[in-house]
Amino acid sequence: MDRYTPGLHILATLNTSHPLLLTDVDSCRHFFDGLILSLGLTKVGEVYHGFPKAGFTAIVCLTESHVSIHTWPEHGLATFDVFLSNFENDNSQKARTFCRETAAFFSAEVVNVTEVLR
Amino acid sequence: MDRYTPGLHILATLNTSHPLLLTDVDSCRHFFDGLILSLGLTKVGEVYHGFPKAGFTAIVCLTESHVSIHTWPEHGLATFDVFLSNFENDNSQKARTFCRETAAFFSAEVVNVTEVLR
Repeated sequence: MDRYTPGLHILATLNTSHPLLLTDVDSCRHFFDGLILSLGLTKVGEVYHGFPKAGFTAIVCLTESHVSIHTWPEHGLATFDVFLSNFENDNSQKARTFCRETAAFFSAEVVNVTEVLR
Repeated sequence: MDRYTPGLHILATLNTSHPLLLTDVDSCRHFFDGLILSLGLTKVGEVYHGFPKAGFTAIVCLTESHVSIHTWPEHGLATFDVFLSNFENDNSQKARTFCRETAAFFSAEVVNVTEVLR
């Protein structure tokens, strides 16, 4: 049967040679806030958690669903995902833009991408 | 080259014939708190957001990564994902247990699963 598919979920691994960026939770928060605003998305909650002398975890809840990132500076990588529902608009391109802009922010190569229409 | 793979990320769609469960954010919080405790995971932050006369979004940040659920009671479904890193232990089976127990809580059939080792 046809089943409702809320939207596109993208998982990506970001590989950077600038690991200090992966320890700077405040810069990430500032970047995410600006990108959410510029893409016209709506934040309804967030968690930013830095680990001592290590990476951080950030999750932003959106009315459109969520964005998350977990950083692993000791490996120069971050695991990123963005899920945007299409409740009022097709947000698939915004999800891809969010992923691409996040990779650029971390000066990162996107080494693995999984797109799931779910 | 071999790249560090932090852990297993599972995306699942849950299909239930009990849509009222998909509007009860407090019950979900209670259930998640108990499951996190029983699996020995560690919470570092959370967002639970109910939409008026509709579903809810919940995200729990863990030291091991995160759990999220977005519910769509009008369609009898929820999009769930759990990502648990293997920093100190292989948590793959805990991720699968988390998914299975969440489906059981919502009396739901798991209609679509994507597992990504990332």
